[in-house]
Amino acid sequence: MGAASKTAAAVGSASRTAEAAAAEALANIAAYDAVQPQAWICRPDPAAVLAQARAVDARVAAGERLPLAGATFAVKDNIDVAGQPTTAACPAFAYTPPVSAEVVARLQAAGAVFMGKTNLDQFATGLVGTRSPYGAPGCVFNRTYISGGSSSGSAVAVGAGLVDFALGTDTAGSGRVPAAFNGLTGFKPTKGRWSTRGLTPACRSLDCITVLATDAADAALVDAVAAGFDPQDSYSRRLGPAADYGVAFRFGVPRAYQLQFFGDLEAEALFAAAVQRVVAMGGTPVEVDVAPLLDAAKLLYSGPWVAERTAAAEALLHADPNAIHPVVRAILQGGVGVTGVEAFRGLYALAGYARAAEALWAAADVLLLPTAPTIYRIRELMAEPFALNANLGLYTNFVNLLDMSAVAVPAGFRANATGFGVTLMGPAWADEALLDLARRYEEIRPMPETPPLDLAGKPQTVKLAVVGAHLAGMPLHWQLTSRDAQLAASTRTAAAYRLYAMADATPPKPALIHVGEGGGAIELEVYELTVEAFGSLVAEVPPPLAIGTVTLEDGSQVKGFVAEPRAIDGAEDVTKHGGWRAYIASRGT
Amino acid sequence: MGAASKTAAAVGSASRTAEAAAAEALANIAAYDAVQPQAWICRPDPAAVLAQARAVDARVAAGERLPLAGATFAVKDNIDVAGQPTTAACPAFAYTPPVSAEVVARLQAAGAVFMGKTNLDQFATGLVGTRSPYGAPGCVFNRTYISGGSSSGSAVAVGAGLVDFALGTDTAGSGRVPAAFNGLTGFKPTKGRWSTRGLTPACRSLDCITVLATDAADAALVDAVAAGFDPQDSYSRRLGPAADYGVAFRFGVPRAYQLQFFGDLEAEALFAAAVQRVVAMGGTPVEVDVAPLLDAAKLLYSGPWVAERTAAAEALLHADPNAIHPVVRAILQGGVGVTGVEAFRGLYALAGYARAAEALWAAADVLLLPTAPTIYRIRELMAEPFALNANLGLYTNFVNLLDMSAVAVPAGFRANATGFGVTLMGPAWADEALLDLARRYEEIRPMPETPPLDLAGKPQTVKLAVVGAHLAGMPLHWQLTSRDAQLAASTRTAAAYRLYAMADATPPKPALIHVGEGGGAIELEVYELTVEAFGSLVAEVPPPLAIGTVTLEDGSQVKGFVAEPRAIDGAEDVTKHGGWRAYIASRGT
Repeated sequence: MGAASKTAAAVGSASRTAEAAAAEALANIAAYDAVQPQAWICRPDPAAVLAQARAVDARVAAGERLPLAGATFAVKDNIDVAGQPTTAACPAFAYTPPVSAEVVARLQAAGAVFMGKTNLDQFATGLVGTRSPYGAPGCVFNRTYISGGSSSGSAVAVGAGLVDFALGTDTAGSGRVPAAFNGLTGFKPTKGRWSTRGLTPACRSLDCITVLATDAADAALVDAVAAGFDPQDSYSRRLGPAADYGVAFRFGVPRAYQLQFFGDLEAEALFAAAVQRVVAMGGTPVEVDVAPLLDAAKLLYSGPWVAERTAAAEALLHADPNAIHPVVRAILQGGVGVTGVEAFRGLYALAGYARAAEALWAAADVLLLPTAPTIYRIRELMAEPFALNANLGLYTNFVNLLDMSAVAVPAGFRANATGFGVTLMGPAWADEALLDLARRYEEIRPMPETPPLDLAGKPQTVKLAVVGAHLAGMPLHWQLTSRDAQLAASTRTAAAYRLYAMADATPPKPALIHVGEGGGAIELEVYELTVEAFGSLVAEVPPPLAIGTVTLEDGSQVKGFVAEPRAIDGAEDVTKHGGWRAYIASRGT
Repeated sequence: MGAASKTAAAVGSASRTAEAAAAEALANIAAYDAVQPQAWICRPDPAAVLAQARAVDARVAAGERLPLAGATFAVKDNIDVAGQPTTAACPAFAYTPPVSAEVVARLQAAGAVFMGKTNLDQFATGLVGTRSPYGAPGCVFNRTYISGGSSSGSAVAVGAGLVDFALGTDTAGSGRVPAAFNGLTGFKPTKGRWSTRGLTPACRSLDCITVLATDAADAALVDAVAAGFDPQDSYSRRLGPAADYGVAFRFGVPRAYQLQFFGDLEAEALFAAAVQRVVAMGGTPVEVDVAPLLDAAKLLYSGPWVAERTAAAEALLHADPNAIHPVVRAILQGGVGVTGVEAFRGLYALAGYARAAEALWAAADVLLLPTAPTIYRIRELMAEPFALNANLGLYTNFVNLLDMSAVAVPAGFRANATGFGVTLMGPAWADEALLDLARRYEEIRPMPETPPLDLAGKPQTVKLAVVGAHLAGMPLHWQLTSRDAQLAASTRTAAAYRLYAMADATPPKPALIHVGEGGGAIELEVYELTVEAFGSLVAEVPPPLAIGTVTLEDGSQVKGFVAEPRAIDGAEDVTKHGGWRAYIASRGT
């Protein structure tokens, strides 16, 4: 992403010292505190940050070659930074570690400047960002929506441009899902590639520390420093043989019926577009059966692995359960009843899925899946905290269980400005090859334009298609203008509708009837209005009209005026006119 | 072992057809039924065996090159053979599989002739052979002692010369311990090297199928046929890079304080001799810290892995617990209460031990440990079924947990004729290199002479050292001759004793007092007598004399006459005479 590559730009820039970079980051962070202070749990004193940066400048001046000199970074608050409390978003759990996590120490040794500890779903248990007593960060582009989690604060800190990169963690998707929602690249290394020493466990056998960055080049820069065997970490592994994907490569995509977006048609379209981007890179798509992946995914929360989460916080769960976030507590308590027999049976099931999943690598060099199938509003997660969270992990939960490496890359934005992402997945040790593919993916033009940051807070809006008396210039158009509705598009329906002029309507009003075959494309206008305005308008719609869903000629769906069947009693089919305006004109008033 | 190599001798022998080999094996098996019929659980009809063998002969005659043509083999009865019931030594669990285990199928395809299913500790849960409703096989050289288990019948079938080789299984040592006790080579491949499809699980994540053979050459012959990836087995693995040990190699031995033989001084001496054999092969011994291995070993029965055993038999455990052997049932029930949290904590602990154990391979190419620290009598196991079994796994339990390969090789025999073995261990995929080392080990002369088979049953005997009135020609010597005691040795004590002529003893009697430094070596005679005779003699020993333990000048220990402290009240120190006979002679009668 060239210019957007924050870390690469920051490093070795003769024009800017680490101190200047840190000072600028401090200012940006302070300013963003007016927007989403809940991105952070704890930050060191600004003076200490500047002292850190000056020490980096001194090392550079002394001739040291520091690959991350002056790059600013944030650390998810389940990873130890010496002298800073580690809370895992649970104040009762907090302790102040005397030494930093191995990965943090490596980054600082390479010249990166630590800016603070970020918020997370408590004990990294969640994909949403709403499960923290420190508040729920929202998506940087639309704060009505979740930031994603559990690395919520890290995604916001990078997405809002506060730091060059941030450390997250990823057991079930915690480093990838929030990257997707905030337009970032989220690199989840192969298990054991980065030391997890100094990490508060979520599922200790599966946990990875990850990086959220603005692009793949930055992620690769961080990986080069962070990767390496740590003999003091039981789960660290010696690096395996690296993969190498050529210009031409095969990428597996799920069978059509295996793709699920929970009704998010924009996400579905963005995924299809991402597939075309990868084709443009030189990839050949191959449909693969991802059933064993989806089955393995279910083990993580529905199976015995939840006992690993219980194991990680068991003392507190017994001593002071009320100190734990109620949603997280319910999950941890679910692990108490898991038996050893179930745990081993889970391992057997996983071995079976792993064997089945292996076959994928014969058919495809990499897999391309949505990072998350959809996104939800913060309030929706508050109301339905379990099921919606589970939906988000559909394409991420299995990755660590099946020992894969993964890079989540941006794949565009929804109309509500929230990010959608796709993930390139490979077997263990494909890390560098995946990062290279991600770089190539980012070079394909055009890149979707990144929306502006949501600094003011966005009211939730709805798009409404009107076909009759609400069209511009028509008798009821004032119902839209009085509600500050903005014209979003003048277009047509899919060729699947018939338009009727209803009998005895005053003013004259049409009824739009979906008929499928034999239908025509009907002119309409799409307006965007706040949910509040939308609600008050819907409240005033008289029968037999109603507000339903209308399919546009590009296949997308919006809310719109539809009609009950009785609307066509005695009505005149005016489809041939192609729209209400033309019909009215044909009547010569 | 050249001539003893049954399989190699059997294969490709122009002088003998498979049918002739099978007929001879059938005759030997039938004859041995008079000795230990409990070695077998089920055998096919002799006619079917001969038909099998004739089919092999026909294939050979048709020009097929069969690496195991005419080699006879037995199969532990937790491994499927098509059409034969698989009982796992639990009649209520039995089923008749339609297809053979993958490994059995490979052996038969290679020309080996299946002779029958062998007894085992039920569900392969034990290292003893005493936990089966089909009876307890004894060591082929002394049936008072256990055969070892759980592959008890397989070890007896090969040890008694009934078949060329036998399949065992090995989770905690079940393929190695019985090999050691019966003078055999027991090869436990790297986990996943041999398919476990068709194996009744003990601990499914750890189970291996193994071979018990008369020597390493035979084991290698079987491995060449049995090894290979099986995509239908979730736990099968593609073969890793093989190790290669040169003429000179380093072998790790435990630190002296880490070696434990539970008082079995003969085993201790045999281990020391085995170390010298490996030195003679070109090995350089290096002391290594085996603490992480011993710690990992404890996880298998004391830790959560017992839940795997429960998982394997859970349905029967709930439906009909009384159908399970009481000792095995107690173990399986112990797994019911294991929690998922404990299971994962066990995995974490294991990961730590594995990391610590890795360091061993930097210090040594292979490890050399006793296969089992000692052996027990069948009646001892019946009386103390848990603790004694646990003792036997001291040096084997950790091997599968830590993903090692291992070959147990014979290392001599105790005076009671039971076998002692040592195990060469390497990391995963060292299999072929270990088998090669085992071959070299077997070539070192002299090999301990294999004792005769115990066909009649051996009474248990005890060695008793006498120093005074019981010496040949002395007044109480009749107490030995009347009990059929046999002179085993005329020797001296270690130079750590003083000999006193007790005051007022009739006939004159000495008291042998251990003083350590300042002591002398005292002449004595060692007699061997049955436990019954020994017991009746001990019952007649008058105070202040007693029967204790006497250390001989070669360092070994035997039972012998000792004395209470009061024995030296008013006694005369006659140590300078060097023995009672010389003292008596000095008195001139």
